[in-house]
Amino acid sequence: MPPSVTFVISSCSVQESKSTGMATKKLGMDFVKQMSEYASGSNGFDRVLRMIKITGGGDGRAIGEFTVANEHLNRQGTLHGGLTATIVDNCTTYALMSKGSHPGVTANLNVSYIAAAKPGEIIEIDCHTVRAGKKMAYLDCILRRKSDGKIIAKGGQVKYIQFDKEKLDF
Amino acid sequence: MPPSVTFVISSCSVQESKSTGMATKKLGMDFVKQMSEYASGSNGFDRVLRMIKITGGGDGRAIGEFTVANEHLNRQGTLHGGLTATIVDNCTTYALMSKGSHPGVTANLNVSYIAAAKPGEIIEIDCHTVRAGKKMAYLDCILRRKSDGKIIAKGGQVKYIQFDKEKLDF
Amino acid sequence: MPPSVTFVISSCSVQESKSTGMATKKLGMDFVKQMSEYASGSNGFDRVLRMIKITGGGDGRAIGEFTVANEHLNRQGTLHGGLTATIVDNCTTYALMSKGSHPGVTANLNVSYIAAAKPGEIIEIDCHTVRAGKKMAYLDCILRRKSDGKIIAKGGQVKYIQFDKEKLDF
Amino acid sequence: MPPSVTFVISSCSVQESKSTGMATKKLGMDFVKQMSEYASGSNGFDRVLRMIKITGGGDGRAIGEFTVANEHLNRQGTLHGGLTATIVDNCTTYALMSKGSHPGVTANLNVSYIAAAKPGEIIEIDCHTVRAGKKMAYLDCILRRKSDGKIIAKGGQVKYIQFDKEKLDF
Repeated sequence: MPPSVTFVISSCSVQESKSTGMATKKLGMDFVKQMSEYASGSNGFDRVLRMIKITGGGDGRAIGEFTVANEHLNRQGTLHGGLTATIVDNCTTYALMSKGSHPGVTANLNVSYIAAAKPGEIIEIDCHTVRAGKKMAYLDCILRRKSDGKIIAKGGQVKYIQFDKEKLDF
Repeated sequence: MPPSVTFVISSCSVQESKSTGMATKKLGMDFVKQMSEYASGSNGFDRVLRMIKITGGGDGRAIGEFTVANEHLNRQGTLHGGLTATIVDNCTTYALMSKGSHPGVTANLNVSYIAAAKPGEIIEIDCHTVRAGKKMAYLDCILRRKSDGKIIAKGGQVKYIQFDKEKLDF
Repeated sequence: MPPSVTFVISSCSVQESKSTGMATKKLGMDFVKQMSEYASGSNGFDRVLRMIKITGGGDGRAIGEFTVANEHLNRQGTLHGGLTATIVDNCTTYALMSKGSHPGVTANLNVSYIAAAKPGEIIEIDCHTVRAGKKMAYLDCILRRKSDGKIIAKGGQVKYIQFDKEKLDF
Repeated sequence: MPPSVTFVISSCSVQESKSTGMATKKLGMDFVKQMSEYASGSNGFDRVLRMIKITGGGDGRAIGEFTVANEHLNRQGTLHGGLTATIVDNCTTYALMSKGSHPGVTANLNVSYIAAAKPGEIIEIDCHTVRAGKKMAYLDCILRRKSDGKIIAKGGQVKYIQFDKEKLDF
């Protein structure tokens, strides 16, 4: 996942927050967009997520969508489970970071595959932060077919996050 | 995952089996190798696994290795969790298929990330079939750093497999 | 989980349904209540769930609550994770059965522990059926502190269900 | 799980260790036995595990067994999945503690149910510590039928452990 250190977010909409248990700044949809672009702009494995367009989010949530294409398929001609898992991994992290948290490290990832997604279908991604405490974060993600809302997959991850005020002041 | 339908495996070492609860044919390492090449030779998402070299397996097991390269990294410079999940997804399926089962469909995928893997490190993948019954298969996978055996990640999946004799006669 | 065979449900509110992919009968809150009482009335392990009071549900959902008591605690004085897992296991199955499905068998159970629950706190349980297909069912469960809605735990299970019209005609 | 604070372990076999990443003391089978007795001797939920007899362990491992009895069953007459989850939760924690770690708190529990266990069968429990780092611990557990080694269930948990030297000096 993106580092918590070197990048600069210049234009994100920052809201002040008084939450004591969590971060001091909550970040808006612009921030989620920038995180997504920053990640998938790399030559690393994040590049496989270039097709995702962020459509909403901020303050612990990340919403996006993409159209299933040939390069996303398994040998049975449907959305590859490994790509689904990669989406869950990254997009929940964008959601977490929009709470003002640094990305942390994943301890556990879990995905249930509920229905197949086919080429040409638009899939909506909706991730949210269930809890981001001082040490651990719990994140959920759901993938739905846009045309009728049918759930394609559900998953989430547990991350270790070292709460650290300095790091949150981007 | 690879389809259960159209491909032809010509040179795999086939052993007869009398197991009633499971498949009628157990397949050797050559089969696992061919499955891996078949999958990653596609233009689909399996292409991201082209770096894996199968080194062992057959009869329910699949063993391979790869060297961590830049294209496998997250933004923190270590092996991307989504790629790890993709490895678990595919390689456990090769293991399953070498039991004589068709690939089935994934119901649930679970991965625990235990340590970071860095560029240049050789990672060993070791997958095995815990159980392949008539309807459900349970598969495990472990990723280890080759130099010292340090566990990088552990995971597995639960698959729905419709036991069907005809499909098993490749 | 409760068997699909021998018991008689006399007073449940039955709604007709035309859904082809799923069960032919959807059952109401009375049914969920009866299932819960039937299960926890046994001398088996279900007895540990006698404290749960069903407060809502039907048609794929099961809602209940209980007050955390001494017999529910771990050695740290908070709700035991094993009891939480048992609640997720049983209550999601009630939810599934209220779709008209028989209970099936659990393939995988997953629970994330998000916050501690203390003696005297009332915990709300809310389970729903994400999908109940012909072969597999996906179920979710959330445990919340009633006083403020704080999430205590989240989880779910994947079940194998052999769709069988006859069995559904209780 | 058992607290990290107040109890006294007087007779456990302590081995010195120079591992820097982990605990300073590794504890033997006597310690695992005492932990198991301490936990299940409570009036809390741990009491449901009184039937477990520790037969081995120490230095990150915990091995035990029990005979499936009526009070352990679900309504289908086989070992209840909630009890299995409780066993995984507690016994992996004994394993962890025998590394010299305090019990920590569970972040995620995952169990796959592979075969049914019936009354009268002796089930072996084998838990080990995959990794116990400074902050996170990864634990595995397998349940086998003693007569033939058939795997009944597999699972594990991810725990948050605050490494703290003082707490480890029991």
